[in-house]
Amino acid sequence: MQDLKYVKIDRQVCQWLREAREIVLSELNSQLTVETKSGRKDLVTNVDKQVEQFLTNKIKTQYPESHILGEEGFGDKVDENTDGIIWIVDPIDGTMNFVKQRNNFAIMIGVYKDQEPILGYIMNVVTGELLHGGPLTGIKLNQAEISNIENQGLSEGLIGLSGPLLVHNEYNMQTIGDSALGMRIYGSAGLEIMAVIKGELVGYISYLRPWDFGAGKILAECCGLSFTMVDGQPLNMLSSGVVLIATKRAHSDILTIVSQ
Amino acid sequence: MQDLKYVKIDRQVCQWLREAREIVLSELNSQLTVETKSGRKDLVTNVDKQVEQFLTNKIKTQYPESHILGEEGFGDKVDENTDGIIWIVDPIDGTMNFVKQRNNFAIMIGVYKDQEPILGYIMNVVTGELLHGGPLTGIKLNQAEISNIENQGLSEGLIGLSGPLLVHNEYNMQTIGDSALGMRIYGSAGLEIMAVIKGELVGYISYLRPWDFGAGKILAECCGLSFTMVDGQPLNMLSSGVVLIATKRAHSDILTIVSQ
Repeated sequence: MQDLKYVKIDRQVCQWLREAREIVLSELNSQLTVETKSGRKDLVTNVDKQVEQFLTNKIKTQYPESHILGEEGFGDKVDENTDGIIWIVDPIDGTMNFVKQRNNFAIMIGVYKDQEPILGYIMNVVTGELLHGGPLTGIKLNQAEISNIENQGLSEGLIGLSGPLLVHNEYNMQTIGDSALGMRIYGSAGLEIMAVIKGELVGYISYLRPWDFGAGKILAECCGLSFTMVDGQPLNMLSSGVVLIATKRAHSDILTIVSQ
Repeated sequence: MQDLKYVKIDRQVCQWLREAREIVLSELNSQLTVETKSGRKDLVTNVDKQVEQFLTNKIKTQYPESHILGEEGFGDKVDENTDGIIWIVDPIDGTMNFVKQRNNFAIMIGVYKDQEPILGYIMNVVTGELLHGGPLTGIKLNQAEISNIENQGLSEGLIGLSGPLLVHNEYNMQTIGDSALGMRIYGSAGLEIMAVIKGELVGYISYLRPWDFGAGKILAECCGLSFTMVDGQPLNMLSSGVVLIATKRAHSDILTIVSQ
C-alpha cells in the first residue's frame, strides 16, 4: 500500500514538472529580469521565482501539512528539528546556463520524510528528459527503467568537476582530473548528477547546497552510487559543502587522492 | 552561378551527413572496437573508420578531382602545395564522449578551394542539429538562418576551455576562466565551436588539429567571430596548435590576459 501511495505521488509530481517545463519553455525567447545574489556569478531570474511559486503552490494545495525548502525563498523555515514531509525545490538549477545559453539547466525536487529519502526528480527542461523515483518506486528516465550503472574506476571514465575547485586545486582536484580519462564542466549540478546516473560520467564533485543535491542524492543512492562529502563523511540533506557523487570504485579512487 | 553551384553542393553534403548520422545511430548501442592512438586519452573506433570511409567514398565518387584530409587516414596526402578543392573530414569529433557517453560528439566536414574557405559542416549526431554553409551560401542551423551573435566581452559570458590547458595553466588559462562568468568543458571541439556560434559561449580555447577546426573556422568566420592561434597569430587550415575562437571583444580580452 505504501508503494502504491508513492507511485501516485510520483505520477502527480511528474505532471507538475511537465507543466513547470511549459512555463519555462514559453519564457525561453523572452527578455529576463536577472538579479545577482552573492556575486556576479550567482544569478536569479523572474523565471526562477515564477517556477518556485508554481511548484510551492501545487505542493501546499495538495499536501498542506508539508514543509518546503526552496532556493528562492518561497518555502518555509526548515532545520534539523523539522519532521514529517520536506520538499526541497530548485526551480532552475544552472541559472547561469539558463541566462546565457537558454539551455543546459534543470528543475529539481527532492522529497524526504523524517529526513529519509522518498522521491527525487531531475528534469532537463530543454530536452524534456525526466529522471524520477525513489527507493519505494524504483528510478526511471521518462518511462524507461535505469539499467545497472557499470562500477568503473576513476581512470576508466570521465569526471564532472566545478571550475573554481579545479582552478584553485582544492582537494587535489587537478590530480583527480588528470587521473580520469577526461574532465567535463557542464554548469548544472542536476544535469551532472543525471550524467553520472546515465553512466556518462563516473563521478561529479562540486560545492553544493541542499537544493542542488536534494533530488540527486535520492536518485543516485537508489542506483547504487556513493554520495558523500568530498572527504568521505556522510552528507545530511540540510548540509552545504563540497560533495562527491561517484560509482563505488571511482569514489574510493577519489578519496585516496583527496587524502594525499 | 557560383552561388547556385555551392548551394547544390551544400544540399548534397547535408544529405551525406544525414546518411552518416544513420550509420552512427545504428551503432549507438552496439559493442565498439576501441583502439588507442597517441595515448590512453586518444581513441579511435570502428565507427570513426566506417564513417570516414563512407564520406571519402561519397566525395571521391562525386568529386574525383578533390583532395581529402581525413583524421583516420583514409584520405590523401595534403600539404601547403596542394591546390584545388580540399575536403577536411572528422568522422567522429569527441571520440572519447562517443565511447564513454554515446552522446556529445559531432561529424565535421570543411571544404576549401586553393586554401580559401568554401563550406563547413558540424553535425551534433545525437540531437541531429546541423550547422552548415559558407561565405557564398550563408550559414544555417538546420533550416534556420543564424542571427547575429552578440559581441560580448569575456566577463559577460561563459568560456569553453580544454581540461589539460586549464589544469596546467597554459597561457594564463586559469585567469581567463576566472574572468569569465563561468568555465565549461564539453570535450568536443565541434560542439564547443557550435556553442560559440549559437551564442552559448563567448569563446573556446583548445589544442586543435586541422580536422578539429577545418569546418568550424569557415562557419565561425562567416558569423563574424575571430579565429586565430591563442597568441593572435593567423591560423592556416593545415596548422595544429592552441586555437582561440571568440567574439571580437572576448578575443581582445583574452589576448590581453595571454600576453600578461
